[in-house]
Amino acid sequence: MKIAIIGTGLIGGSIALKLREKDFASHIIGIDKSEKHLEDALLLKIIDEKSDFENGIKNADLVIISIPVDASRKILPSVLDLIDRKQTVMDVGSTKSGIVNSIKNHPKRDRFVAFHPMWGTENSGPESAKTDSFSGKAAVICDQENSAEDALKTVEKITEILEMHPIYMNAADHDIHTAYISHISHITSYALANTVLEKEREEDTIFQLASSGFSSTVRLAKSHPEMWVPIFKQNKENVLDVLNEHISQLRKFKSALEKENYQYLEELIRNANKIRGILE
Amino acid sequence: MKIAIIGTGLIGGSIALKLREKDFASHIIGIDKSEKHLEDALLLKIIDEKSDFENGIKNADLVIISIPVDASRKILPSVLDLIDRKQTVMDVGSTKSGIVNSIKNHPKRDRFVAFHPMWGTENSGPESAKTDSFSGKAAVICDQENSAEDALKTVEKITEILEMHPIYMNAADHDIHTAYISHISHITSYALANTVLEKEREEDTIFQLASSGFSSTVRLAKSHPEMWVPIFKQNKENVLDVLNEHISQLRKFKSALEKENYQYLEELIRNANKIRGILE
Repeated sequence: MKIAIIGTGLIGGSIALKLREKDFASHIIGIDKSEKHLEDALLLKIIDEKSDFENGIKNADLVIISIPVDASRKILPSVLDLIDRKQTVMDVGSTKSGIVNSIKNHPKRDRFVAFHPMWGTENSGPESAKTDSFSGKAAVICDQENSAEDALKTVEKITEILEMHPIYMNAADHDIHTAYISHISHITSYALANTVLEKEREEDTIFQLASSGFSSTVRLAKSHPEMWVPIFKQNKENVLDVLNEHISQLRKFKSALEKENYQYLEELIRNANKIRGILE
Repeated sequence: MKIAIIGTGLIGGSIALKLREKDFASHIIGIDKSEKHLEDALLLKIIDEKSDFENGIKNADLVIISIPVDASRKILPSVLDLIDRKQTVMDVGSTKSGIVNSIKNHPKRDRFVAFHPMWGTENSGPESAKTDSFSGKAAVICDQENSAEDALKTVEKITEILEMHPIYMNAADHDIHTAYISHISHITSYALANTVLEKEREEDTIFQLASSGFSSTVRLAKSHPEMWVPIFKQNKENVLDVLNEHISQLRKFKSALEKENYQYLEELIRNANKIRGILE
């Protein structure tokens, strides 16, 4: 299968590497507005050739859109305009309502499959791509009833090759659940980094004292705004809802400490400890 | 050297394993109010014998107190009462002002060295102890001018054996910096876990969708209240100070989203990204 990857960074690159390793991809075409990303992706053997937008899409059986969610939403209609009914298009974005709504009346809507692999790191660019990135993680497929059977089968086959387990969900539910489980973690981590940078003016002390616990909690704060501002923007209502809850949960800790109510503090912590039973 | 470990859990156990491996400890005596911990520690060869409080302390050259910070503070005066001027006592607690103040007028104050290895995990008990836990991390030694030279040398030797780099600081500064860098991470993580548990009633969905990013940010929320309530209690003022800042940082994200001020949101994220340059 000939595959065009729009966006040859961490996610697009990692998918490309795995699809080639498993001989699912016979030829990979890279499309990227960054010439440096394309050159790096060629060097790293993530792609076989670079191409412009139109030719790259026309020459592929499958088009994978792997760019920030606002850009995905913007270009998806033009991608669908360019393809015929034998071609399939998928995305990998972290928000889904916006993108499916942008093409709901497009005559080739059913050639598109909305896909979200629940994996990422704080790094970006082709040099961060790794072949076994997705193994064991969930892949959400949204609104599958709006995709043609053969297009869906192609994406399910890719899910299998990536060693992910598929979860089916409508786009609106997806955006609620990811706000709760993924998007809020990023805001927490960004705000923690800003807190420490504000309070701890001695950068040397941060570096010297940083324990593995701090590093783990603040890891996502390294994630780039190019990817995350569009996610928060597209999922604004759900993110605000969970952010309000998060602030109110922090206020409970504040109140317990201020009132020296250590029994309440213990209850709050015991409740949080339940996450262990759920994650393991 | 004969060593008594009061508290044979994660930290005490990990130190014991390393001191034996490097032949610094010739004999290790375990003291613990939990009979099960003592039995486990014997089985795991963390300790050579179990003992009661008084005999254990009297028979050791070095006593390592490795229990929650409120309990450490409570028993330290009795430990100093029991030792002679050839013996050394150290703790491993995450707060320091309380414990050094509790013995500031003790005639054997100088036999005590206040020590804080900047490492821990969300796990506890002897079965979590590992020999190479501390390698490469910082160890803070507080108020070293109040410790006898030979006692300080013993603890510096242990720092070296644990492959940690020593940092010298007064107890008050230590408690400020750890509030900023370590204690707030735990509150963030607990509050995030409580947020997700409150909003996401479908535990199955949490389990299925949890990405590595979420797991990393919420990892510390598994830490037990037995250890953390006393830390927050002893470091209340500093923790409240940084918690207020953290809530105000989260409000900035809220405000940026509510006002759809995405340029401000980007600035907040770019500022948080600076943590990468500091940690790496």
